[in-house]
Amino acid sequence: MSRLDSAIRRLQAQRACLDRAAALIEDIEGVVLELGLGNGRTFDHLRQRLPEREIYVFERHVAAHPACIPACDRLIVGDVRDGLAAARPCFAGRVALAHVDLASGDAASSERLFADIPALLVPLMRPGGVIVSERMLPGTPWQPLALPGEVPLGRYWLYRSLPG
Amino acid sequence: MSRLDSAIRRLQAQRACLDRAAALIEDIEGVVLELGLGNGRTFDHLRQRLPEREIYVFERHVAAHPACIPACDRLIVGDVRDGLAAARPCFAGRVALAHVDLASGDAASSERLFADIPALLVPLMRPGGVIVSERMLPGTPWQPLALPGEVPLGRYWLYRSLPG
Repeated sequence: MSRLDSAIRRLQAQRACLDRAAALIEDIEGVVLELGLGNGRTFDHLRQRLPEREIYVFERHVAAHPACIPACDRLIVGDVRDGLAAARPCFAGRVALAHVDLASGDAASSERLFADIPALLVPLMRPGGVIVSERMLPGTPWQPLALPGEVPLGRYWLYRSLPG
Repeated sequence: MSRLDSAIRRLQAQRACLDRAAALIEDIEGVVLELGLGNGRTFDHLRQRLPEREIYVFERHVAAHPACIPACDRLIVGDVRDGLAAARPCFAGRVALAHVDLASGDAASSERLFADIPALLVPLMRPGGVIVSERMLPGTPWQPLALPGEVPLGRYWLYRSLPG
């Protein structure tokens, strides 16, 4: 498999999981959190699939395509951990969908970042809300969900927040 | 169509056209030129599909994944026009496949670059050789080829060099 093949598979897996999550939260009220804007592709996908939802984006350095940058009152710039901690009073129990897409060039710092996310995200999720992540998020009270059929195991992760 | 959808389609079109070109040159001797290395994905795809071929890569600034950088004797760093002009004595009539993948952030300079490529590439192509390009390359004696069925018209361009 070439890197071109692998890029196609990765983006297809991302899209399949986001589409699945969008369907799963149909009857769950609440906002959407995009943790990591990157080039803005998945933000663009979410806002097209979920036009009625408020989508809040957390990003350290905004470097997306200009057409894919959210309005300033929906963009929380800075360390995602600080952003989530500060957003807790506002978003506690109100998040229907969180997409954790925090790729970074540095493997060790990505590892630490992903390790810190679950504890910050758990109190924000609404029961029945869905978490989509490019890495496993262990140590949460969330229910792991089956992936869409075309997505290889371990490529992406889907969880559902349970009633507390 | 979201930017995520569009990225998937673009990469799929690229792969379909490169695979088609690789099949078309099966009986055509010669080297492969990759004009523009970028992140190295299509170079990686070509070297996997065509392991027997010498692949020469032209790139202004090398910024690919380290695993996708060609050996130094297969990499021509600098302005692609200068590189092609300098390579003419070596490659004249010897190119079986050229992939023109010269995206740049600046639309006007990309336009000029693509406009200059055909005149430099024509003398290098072996009769029967194939040119794959992300833009139309007008003003050549090449035969435009039909795209693979799944590729929308105008998304990619395929040409065949005719016997002179």
